[in-house]
Amino acid sequence: MKNFMDKDFLLESELAKALYHNYAALMPIIDYHCHMNPKDIAEDKKFENITQVWLAGDHYKWRAMRSCGVSERLITGDADDYSKFEAFVACMPSMIGHPVYHWSHLELQRYFGYDGVICPANCEEIWDVTKKALEGGLTMRKLIENSRVKLICTTDDPADNLEYHIAIRKDSSFKTQVLPTFRPDKSLNVGAKDFADYIARLSAASGFEIKSFDALCAVLESRVAFFKEVGCCISDHSFDNSISFNSALTAEEAKIIACETFKLALAGEHIPAEAVSAYKNALMRFLGKMYVKYGFAMQVHFGALRNTNSVMFSRLGPDCGYDTISGEPSTLALGHMLDALNSDGALPRTILYSLNGNDNANIASLAGCFQYASEETEGLFNMPNVVQGAAWWFNDHLSGMYDHFRAYAHSAAFGKYLGMLTDSRSVVSYTRHEYFRRALCNFIAGFVERGEYPLDIEALAQMVCDICYNNTKDFFGFKLV
Amino acid sequence: MKNFMDKDFLLESELAKALYHNYAALMPIIDYHCHMNPKDIAEDKKFENITQVWLAGDHYKWRAMRSCGVSERLITGDADDYSKFEAFVACMPSMIGHPVYHWSHLELQRYFGYDGVICPANCEEIWDVTKKALEGGLTMRKLIENSRVKLICTTDDPADNLEYHIAIRKDSSFKTQVLPTFRPDKSLNVGAKDFADYIARLSAASGFEIKSFDALCAVLESRVAFFKEVGCCISDHSFDNSISFNSALTAEEAKIIACETFKLALAGEHIPAEAVSAYKNALMRFLGKMYVKYGFAMQVHFGALRNTNSVMFSRLGPDCGYDTISGEPSTLALGHMLDALNSDGALPRTILYSLNGNDNANIASLAGCFQYASEETEGLFNMPNVVQGAAWWFNDHLSGMYDHFRAYAHSAAFGKYLGMLTDSRSVVSYTRHEYFRRALCNFIAGFVERGEYPLDIEALAQMVCDICYNNTKDFFGFKLV
Amino acid sequence: MKNFMDKDFLLESELAKALYHNYAALMPIIDYHCHMNPKDIAEDKKFENITQVWLAGDHYKWRAMRSCGVSERLITGDADDYSKFEAFVACMPSMIGHPVYHWSHLELQRYFGYDGVICPANCEEIWDVTKKALEGGLTMRKLIENSRVKLICTTDDPADNLEYHIAIRKDSSFKTQVLPTFRPDKSLNVGAKDFADYIARLSAASGFEIKSFDALCAVLESRVAFFKEVGCCISDHSFDNSISFNSALTAEEAKIIACETFKLALAGEHIPAEAVSAYKNALMRFLGKMYVKYGFAMQVHFGALRNTNSVMFSRLGPDCGYDTISGEPSTLALGHMLDALNSDGALPRTILYSLNGNDNANIASLAGCFQYASEETEGLFNMPNVVQGAAWWFNDHLSGMYDHFRAYAHSAAFGKYLGMLTDSRSVVSYTRHEYFRRALCNFIAGFVERGEYPLDIEALAQMVCDICYNNTKDFFGFKLV
Repeated sequence: MKNFMDKDFLLESELAKALYHNYAALMPIIDYHCHMNPKDIAEDKKFENITQVWLAGDHYKWRAMRSCGVSERLITGDADDYSKFEAFVACMPSMIGHPVYHWSHLELQRYFGYDGVICPANCEEIWDVTKKALEGGLTMRKLIENSRVKLICTTDDPADNLEYHIAIRKDSSFKTQVLPTFRPDKSLNVGAKDFADYIARLSAASGFEIKSFDALCAVLESRVAFFKEVGCCISDHSFDNSISFNSALTAEEAKIIACETFKLALAGEHIPAEAVSAYKNALMRFLGKMYVKYGFAMQVHFGALRNTNSVMFSRLGPDCGYDTISGEPSTLALGHMLDALNSDGALPRTILYSLNGNDNANIASLAGCFQYASEETEGLFNMPNVVQGAAWWFNDHLSGMYDHFRAYAHSAAFGKYLGMLTDSRSVVSYTRHEYFRRALCNFIAGFVERGEYPLDIEALAQMVCDICYNNTKDFFGFKLV
Repeated sequence: MKNFMDKDFLLESELAKALYHNYAALMPIIDYHCHMNPKDIAEDKKFENITQVWLAGDHYKWRAMRSCGVSERLITGDADDYSKFEAFVACMPSMIGHPVYHWSHLELQRYFGYDGVICPANCEEIWDVTKKALEGGLTMRKLIENSRVKLICTTDDPADNLEYHIAIRKDSSFKTQVLPTFRPDKSLNVGAKDFADYIARLSAASGFEIKSFDALCAVLESRVAFFKEVGCCISDHSFDNSISFNSALTAEEAKIIACETFKLALAGEHIPAEAVSAYKNALMRFLGKMYVKYGFAMQVHFGALRNTNSVMFSRLGPDCGYDTISGEPSTLALGHMLDALNSDGALPRTILYSLNGNDNANIASLAGCFQYASEETEGLFNMPNVVQGAAWWFNDHLSGMYDHFRAYAHSAAFGKYLGMLTDSRSVVSYTRHEYFRRALCNFIAGFVERGEYPLDIEALAQMVCDICYNNTKDFFGFKLV
Repeated sequence: MKNFMDKDFLLESELAKALYHNYAALMPIIDYHCHMNPKDIAEDKKFENITQVWLAGDHYKWRAMRSCGVSERLITGDADDYSKFEAFVACMPSMIGHPVYHWSHLELQRYFGYDGVICPANCEEIWDVTKKALEGGLTMRKLIENSRVKLICTTDDPADNLEYHIAIRKDSSFKTQVLPTFRPDKSLNVGAKDFADYIARLSAASGFEIKSFDALCAVLESRVAFFKEVGCCISDHSFDNSISFNSALTAEEAKIIACETFKLALAGEHIPAEAVSAYKNALMRFLGKMYVKYGFAMQVHFGALRNTNSVMFSRLGPDCGYDTISGEPSTLALGHMLDALNSDGALPRTILYSLNGNDNANIASLAGCFQYASEETEGLFNMPNVVQGAAWWFNDHLSGMYDHFRAYAHSAAFGKYLGMLTDSRSVVSYTRHEYFRRALCNFIAGFVERGEYPLDIEALAQMVCDICYNNTKDFFGFKLV
């Protein structure tokens, strides 16, 4: 029996331990996709207590508590901070196997030096230990620095003025790079109620009144250029089957419909589904070209069904734990989009993520259909151009990671895997990289233990370091010291 | 190498053995969902031989035999009982890994004290041993009592007069509670050929001629009330994508269409798909309200494709082994229904089951979107209100259970899991609870063995007893001594 | 730690080793489905170097290289053979867990007696060792004979004149049977651009001008008869949701539409989707009847999305590594087809394969709905008539095989499993049978090790030999010495 979450947590063989402690644990972190607020980093946010760190905005923990039957008053309601923490702690013994169980313990160990079990008997002690540390200067920046994070990419709207990114960039006292990510979903959602409002906001941000689809494209290009100036090199898209490239529609026809549709949308008219689809088609083609031109990679997140609970949405708004796995098949629609962009010469380096773990092999095989390296890049760029991203959100747990590893390794070069990102709103989530790296080393060592890969420490160490750090650096072309 | 199916069957560590033998094995059984005939219990059915117990109506075993190429004459045909048993036994050595293999051995061990292997060499011996036991008084009730079953919920039509449930209730010599479950599928299937006949049957049962949708609703409420008097506190629904809540249709509009549709259906007219959908929408809204009002929980079973083989359906009728996993995605439609009911204040405590094992994570994440506890219930009711049910039917085997456990544990509080039910037509199926409990203890112990959960026997024992018994008792509010 | 790929590769217990070495390894091979070119066998093709054997036409290896970011020039481009081999070898250390990694090592071990690791340091040595062997007489036929292959089924168009099959048959110096498989996909694809051209080709091959649907049917029957003369007893179909049997359409109505549709298609007119569907419906019904009449088994392959990358398709054509898993659900459509054929008395022995690994349980349960043995065959034919085939293509790797084994064993008699086929274009792929057999023995031994199946060597050995060889022989009725 292994000790509970000790230094060899998740490492089931001597080789796994060696790979983790001698290589993986030593690599710094690149968190190329997260949802932290750059304002909090710029202003070096302080926390009064562990509830503010853990329970103020983390819907993972809220869902865990709801699954225990905890009253909403103690989750997002008006209960005091200690009562909320007590309710969370009371849930923990029931959370066997849940990632929040391991994440929370890792966070206490690494950030607060606390090695005990999270359970009602230790509730007060944990509250006190963490309060003391937080009061003793464990601020937002300190938490990031302690995690040895070289680079963070936040997620940002094209209308954002990036003031906090610019401020952080100018502040030489903080060594971690904080770059924006270009996420233009709102420009694509032509059927949404708040579309016209959003376009007005984008007009204001760009200082140019957007009256046509062409003007929108011009403004988006100017925002891509602006984001690039602030260090951005990644875009992010949410994808669903409303984006159709499977039609007799040519690029030109889609463009014509997009122009009309945009005007109707600005005028507040109802947009039929086919027009939405043609609009998205045209705009994605344009954005693909921009990304290629400006050297941005493109992330595509699909398979999510959002805001499923109308009652709670009207009470709490989005991102409060009411999103789910859609279950609708997406390979076909996604394949059509990749093919259309590729045919246009508008397929940037691309990373695919599905919220549906059943899509693992589908994505892996689809990515393989668009991997291409030209003669010119021979020997220069050693990463594939279209890849499957890490296990996303509801799949970000031990089995989810192992399933993802297996699906990846069975259909592509696992040594070229792009590795981990937190996708988190919480600053203490960097231990998810540790969790990932432990599972990764254990996974890789397993092949050697079973005689399925030779015991070549050099090759294994290279693979571990590549997946933990080098591949991400190379794929995005980050400039790091 | 472990011994074949001995006392430590499926238990891979000392901790797993301790959890099973000291806790799980001692808990009584609540079988909150099955398909036994209450008449057989009321009349304390006798069996002449093992074929009558095992092969008279169990389509699991029939499918197993068909997958061996056995002639239908020896399955559902006119062969004599011994020949059928001999054919079944001849199949067994080929059934490695099949749940029927383990179930059958467990049943011989527990009910008949026979520890041998089921194979042609032992065929006669097994026939004789079981015949002797059955002739020696191993009746329906005796089999149930030997399994320490506290409570059974059968599955019943609203038109049923529940005479056998009432008879059993009055008979103080039988200690096991046998409660009905309210399953109004036939009232919902407005497009079915026999719909009008069914409504006539329901009219007769209720003593009130049902001429309108409103009358149907009134009668269904009276039946809910009647079922409740006989101890019922659970309803059961089969769900498929024909139930649509994803439309511009308001509750009022759906009701109007439902009223018209009901009349057309009574008149034997063809009902178009949209009308079926609106009718089901309106009736589900009504039933949801009733369940909340009368304190019934609601089971939702989906993902099944029934009666796929027309030739065999016309020969043998339903439930003879010709149903399959549909493979169609359902999360979207199901999510819309839960949201609509929830918005109406008509979402009862709900249990979701899919026949498609790929839906495990989807259901778990969807259930998490509707878990809600109000301030009033704080500290009173400690179970979540919407949960994922046990691995259903074609998933009720070792990998299916482990996959289900993992999906559950990764996305919700596994300690609150509702545990096992047999879903069986066979009275010797209670060993499926044993099978489940062994896998459960092994699963839970695994986390501790791997250092992923602390070795806290008290917490572990509580979790085991909760999942085996207490959670079900609490969720449904069963009154048990 | 196990040694790297030694004689006990994949065998994790003494029992697994015994089952493999004493039974599985001794059985000859029946490769009942592959894509080798019969011309190469008839002419006993010679290879100049390992690039010609490995990299000339194997899209599995091409995809592996693309996933490493290798330039297309070194994959399908004009680079010299050694440079291509060097590029492939350079990728190998990154391919941990990939089937190509194991396949390639097994092929070097078995065909070339080379036991080293494939890595840049050994590149030259491997080139030299293999070159010497190939120059020393390791021809196409020698490679097949060394693998102890009793029978090969290639995949052939009805328009094929089968000259090479006939030539091989007449050549008594080559002992392996090489039989054609009847694959009439092109006759079914009535909506395809080259349909009329294909019909002209079929007319030429049959010496009968096909002007009507009835004439097509007559010609196809004559081709079935001709294929049968040359030893064929298997057909092969690709299936997707465009084949619909879920309509109010009777067989007669489908036939009428098919007749009209065929004429429109010959005239080069556009065919609407419903007409395509009705045409396929009618032609499948006809072909099903033919297969029953001539004793052909029918393979159905579904879940593939082909030629997803238009750019590369226009450059390289089909089968160059740009196909993917479709992800669309198929159980419903497939179930309707099986039911329609079964109702017509036109359901031959059938094998179902999906490219989507998520379909494993769905197929297993669907196959179980059409398994039927009549009284007449009692005791004569001991295989089920509708079965799930081996893990296909993107699923043909270790986890894919184990997942498939488990899904099969959990829902049907695993002892009746039809076992392995290569599905390969490469003559050195017979080691995939070894890979499969090792995994199989390990899987079967696992049940015994865990106490889930008795240690009955006779039963276990029988099961292993049946799955490796006997079941395939019996299912297809191959005549083998």
